[in-house]
Formats: sequence, C-alpha cells, structure tokens
Amino acid sequence: MQTETNIAKFTTPLYLESGRILEPFELAYETYGEISETKDNVVLVCHALTGSHHVAGQYEGDRKPGWWDEVIGEGKAIDTTEHFVICINVLGSCYGSTGPMSDAYPSEAPYRLKFPVVTVKDMIRAQKHLLSALGIHHLKAIVGGSLGGMQALQFAVDYPNFADRIIAMAATYATRPWTIAFNKVAMEAIRRDPRFENGNYARGAFVEEGLDGLAIGRIAGHISYLSPDSMDRKFGRNYVGTDGLFELFGRYEVERYMEYNTNNFSRIFDPMSYLYLAKAVNTFNLSRGYDSLHEAILRIKAQLHLISFGGDCLFFPEEMAHIAQMMERNAQAHQYHEIESDYGHDAFLVEIEKFAHILREALK
Amino acid sequence: MQTETNIAKFTTPLYLESGRILEPFELAYETYGEISETKDNVVLVCHALTGSHHVAGQYEGDRKPGWWDEVIGEGKAIDTTEHFVICINVLGSCYGSTGPMSDAYPSEAPYRLKFPVVTVKDMIRAQKHLLSALGIHHLKAIVGGSLGGMQALQFAVDYPNFADRIIAMAATYATRPWTIAFNKVAMEAIRRDPRFENGNYARGAFVEEGLDGLAIGRIAGHISYLSPDSMDRKFGRNYVGTDGLFELFGRYEVERYMEYNTNNFSRIFDPMSYLYLAKAVNTFNLSRGYDSLHEAILRIKAQLHLISFGGDCLFFPEEMAHIAQMMERNAQAHQYHEIESDYGHDAFLVEIEKFAHILREALK
Repeated sequence: MQTETNIAKFTTPLYLESGRILEPFELAYETYGEISETKDNVVLVCHALTGSHHVAGQYEGDRKPGWWDEVIGEGKAIDTTEHFVICINVLGSCYGSTGPMSDAYPSEAPYRLKFPVVTVKDMIRAQKHLLSALGIHHLKAIVGGSLGGMQALQFAVDYPNFADRIIAMAATYATRPWTIAFNKVAMEAIRRDPRFENGNYARGAFVEEGLDGLAIGRIAGHISYLSPDSMDRKFGRNYVGTDGLFELFGRYEVERYMEYNTNNFSRIFDPMSYLYLAKAVNTFNLSRGYDSLHEAILRIKAQLHLISFGGDCLFFPEEMAHIAQMMERNAQAHQYHEIESDYGHDAFLVEIEKFAHILREALK
Repeated sequence: MQTETNIAKFTTPLYLESGRILEPFELAYETYGEISETKDNVVLVCHALTGSHHVAGQYEGDRKPGWWDEVIGEGKAIDTTEHFVICINVLGSCYGSTGPMSDAYPSEAPYRLKFPVVTVKDMIRAQKHLLSALGIHHLKAIVGGSLGGMQALQFAVDYPNFADRIIAMAATYATRPWTIAFNKVAMEAIRRDPRFENGNYARGAFVEEGLDGLAIGRIAGHISYLSPDSMDRKFGRNYVGTDGLFELFGRYEVERYMEYNTNNFSRIFDPMSYLYLAKAVNTFNLSRGYDSLHEAILRIKAQLHLISFGGDCLFFPEEMAHIAQMMERNAQAHQYHEIESDYGHDAFLVEIEKFAHILREALK
C-alpha cells in the first residue's frame, strides 16, 4: 500500500482553549481505503507525541511503513477493504500541520516560542474542522494510544454524538505529576541547551547534529515507555564496553539502546514541537471545562473500549480502570481490557497481536 | 550535638577492582559518641550517592543538621550514649575524600576524567583501611540506605566476620537496567553540557551558576526517588504559573519542586563526582568476584536486616525480598521488613519513625 500526505489549508480561525486564535492553519493527513457512499465507514486514528499522520502504507523509496502498518491494511485489524481510515498530524507537531516552526502569518518567519500553547481539546477541534471540510460529520470509530488515546477520550467527552465507538489505549483521564516530571526532564534539557537559542535556531539546524537537549530528554521518555521488568528481559546487565567494566563511559546494553534511539531521534524531531506536545500531554485533563470528571464521563455516548497494558509505567493500568469504574457505576456502555505485556507503555506500538482481536471485534 | 570533619591521609596504596592503584588517598569522616574500652560499640553508617559523612549533629553556623540526625544521637534509634558512630565520605565523592577533582599526586592538578572508576567494593575497602588505622577491627553494626545499603551488603559478603549486624535499606543485590537508565540521563546531560568542558572546568566553576547538565540529570534522579503515588499526594495537578495554564513554561507544582531542588543541587555537588558515583551504582553486583549470587550470599555470617519500602521505584522491594528468600533457603540469620510508605525511595531519609524501632531492636 503506497500512500501520500495531503495538506488541508484553513483560512477560518481556530479558537484555542487558551483564548488565542490560530489563523490560518494547516493540517497534514493521510487516508487509506475507500469512503462508502453513506460515509458510514470512517475510522479516525489519532497518533502519539512523536508519531505522525503516516500511520500505514509506505512512501516510495522509504525503508519502513507507517507506525501502525501492522494494524491497518487489507485484512488487518482495521481492515481497509471495509474502512476508510484517516490520520491527521496533530497541531503543534513537525510533520506538516501548523506548529511552532510554521510561518506566523502574515510574516514568513516562524512563530517559535510565540506559538500558542495547544491542548488536546484544541487538537481535536482542529481535526473536526478537517473532517467537516471532507464532508465527514460522523465517525464509525476513533482509535488511538497514548496522546492518541487522550484525543480519542476527549472526542468521546466533547462530542458525544460524533463517533459510535471510541478505542483508547495506554492513556489516562488526566496526566499525573509522575508523567509531568518525565516531561520536565525533556523540557529543561531542551530549554537549557545553548544550541536551542531560546527557540531562535535556524530551520533544519539539527539535521546533521541533533540537539543534545532533545536526545537527553528522550532518554527520560524511553525510561517511561519501558518498565523495570521489560528492561530486565531486553537488556539485563549486559555490558557492551570494549575495555571491561571499568571505563567511566563504558556502556551497559541499556545505555547503548538509549544512545542509539535518542541520538537518531534528535536529528529528526523538532525540539520546539517536542516542548509544545509535552505541554499538551501535561495539560490533559478530561474534566477541564466540566464540573467534575464524573460529569465529563457522564457525557460519553459512544461505546468505549479501554485498553491498558500491565507494565505501562507512564499511564498506569489503574488510570484506565478508573474510567471504566466510573462508567460501570453510570451503567454506560464500555469494555475494559488490561493486557499483560513485556513492553510497558510501548506495547500499543509493538504487541499488536495481543489487542488486534479487540480492535477487530469493536469495529464489527 | 556539634561535630567536625576529620581527614585521614593514607600513603599506602589502595588497590582497586579495576586493577588501578590509588596512592595516596584521603578519607573524610565524622564520629559521634564515645568508643568503649573494648571497642565493641562501633556502628558504621554508610551514606548514599549525594550524601556525605556529615550524618548527624550540626556544624557551627549551619542551618541544618546532618542528613540522618533524626536517627543518630542521644536517646535516638542509634543511641550515641551507647554507640560510637562513624560515617566515612565515599571514595569519588566531593566532600573531602579523594575523588576526581582531588590532586593527582605528585601533580597539583586534579585527576578529572583520569580518576579511576571506583566500585562499591573499592569504597568499602578504603573504609576498612580507615577503620584499621583507628584500631577498629570489628564492628557491632553497619547501616546504610541506597548506595549506603549496597556498601552494607558488600561488607556482609566481602568481610563476613567483620560486623555482627548488617542493616541494609532501600538497596538491591545488583543494579537493574531501569536504574542504570535513570543514571544515563544524568551522565549524558553532564557529559554533553558545554560548560562541563569534558571535565576540564575550573574548580569552583559552578558555585555561582550550577551546571545545567547536573540539574537536568538530578530531575531524573528525583523522579526515581519518588513514586507515582507519592507525587499524586505531594503535588497532584496543582499549577503554580502566574498566567493560567496556557504559558508554555508555566509550571505545575511538581515542576517547581524539580527546579528548586535540582538548581540548588547543581551549585553544590561536583558533576564529575556525580558521574563516578553513578557509575559505582551501575556496576554494583554482589555476585561479582564470586561464582554466583548464591555463593556470594552464602558467605554472609552477620545477622542481616533488610528493609525495603513499598513505593520504592529505584530499588524495588522485590529486589531486597530476593536476598531474603535466598537467605531463607540457606537458613541464614536474617529479617526482612517491607515498610509501606508514601515517600518511595526517599523513605529511608524521611520516614524515620517507620523503621526506627527496627534499628533500635537490631542494635540491642
């Protein structure tokens, strides 16, 4: 399946939760499969912090397909012979949608740190604009993990009649200080890196040599995406130094993993987008704008499918279970699945076979 | 109780686990209480990574007493009317014992990154030199938490006849990749900070303006010292920004806590010492030098008291329980206590009242 990115340009204002206005704005997106005549087969997939709208298929010349290609395609859990799948790059990201390095209209200079703080509520409002523009006013399902799961849940609460089914994975009802603290490592590491220049770095400045601050912050991220047990299994105490255990900078295998993954990442991802998206994760709170979490949850009319993973150390299973318990008490339609996994938070990207049947069943 | 630091100078060589030799070397230490005529009342306290030998009492003019002053003193859990307490600054630290910023004899320039990697085994070997020099050849007890607990356990294994009782808290039998990954954040953040200058910074360079890399690494440290639940109770989602939720760098209370604690710390603690001591934590493995962990544990002859804390996210209770299980199987004298706590790893520094009775009982 080959795919290409579409860019939708909006000259209408986008009203943000902060009171600020984003105008104009653009959204990058991809679609897979064919939309039905009655447009009743649309599935919206929401991506995570460092993900993109390139969720499935393969660009010409690329080595790798989209980040959830195992899930989406012909005959797969989200079957593109039946469904029209759309994934939209979130506001604030660096993959084509309007973000801090976009031109601050009418100038041709980037917003940089003048870009407004965007929230999960803002992200889904923007997505709804795009769907309307495409003539899509109702969804069969919304699916997402992590920040994508937050978007799915926020859709369920803010627009109760918009989607029939919500499938939220590895997310929470409100970000806890534990996760905010992990993001703090990244935010401080980026901010204090001299090459960040308080946001005034040149476009493309880090293509050759990634920003150290982003790489360092990403190490903290990777800790939270794994778990103590998954690290034991993956790395143990294996040592990869060349000169024995007694070099100061000799590395354990877990350290090599961190270096490899984060150095690459810091050349690809924009550090300012990282700041803004981490902030969006931090400010996520389903109850904001409602009298209480109970009131927010009560609004949900979609069939809600909650999937958590046993070793998730970023958004713990009990957080998703808490939503399920509230819905149970309200006799709202829902299912809760806690999946045992060796992969911690990353499981929603990796252990597809453990939840593919849930997606398949939910979309029936 | 007023105290002062002593410095012991050794011109004898210290043979390190790496094969390297440290000569001369110095150790800073403090003592509390009076040694008995038969020297049968000596309690050695071992400190944690960022701790010092200043464990109790107060220096003239200081605002705060030593880090475990609640535990050590007249009538306290480690009662100085009965016991002679000694605490020795670990090798590699920056509080008076020989470390990377000490003169590399015979030059007057610091070792810097030429300082040898030191291990927990090396730390306790150095301490044993000092105790011998003081004419102390047997201890009533060795007590310590975290890196201090590692030292206590290593004493128990390496010198089975040296101490009657070992009290190890919030430690492990071998550092797991989870903890190595947390240390990795600090090690990379320090290393990549331009002001670190590959270790060639001037002495006292960070007194006015702390090293960002150390502050950032310390944020990761503080995450691991707390726990998701303790952060919920301590900070919740409280926000301290002045201009509402929508400033990019507005802070949640947990973020303010991290900034406050880590910025201060980065002016006080030497970043090179942090690197070396983090490495000592990473390389800690009770079984190194023995055929197996089982063989290492089998050597222990002291009465072993293991204390872990329910919410400890750095060294999990099951790691201490694992040692207890091995000793149980071998019918070796031991006690295992898992203490419920709101403080995570930090509990051994904070929730004194929850384990004071165990110390008191163990020292009877």
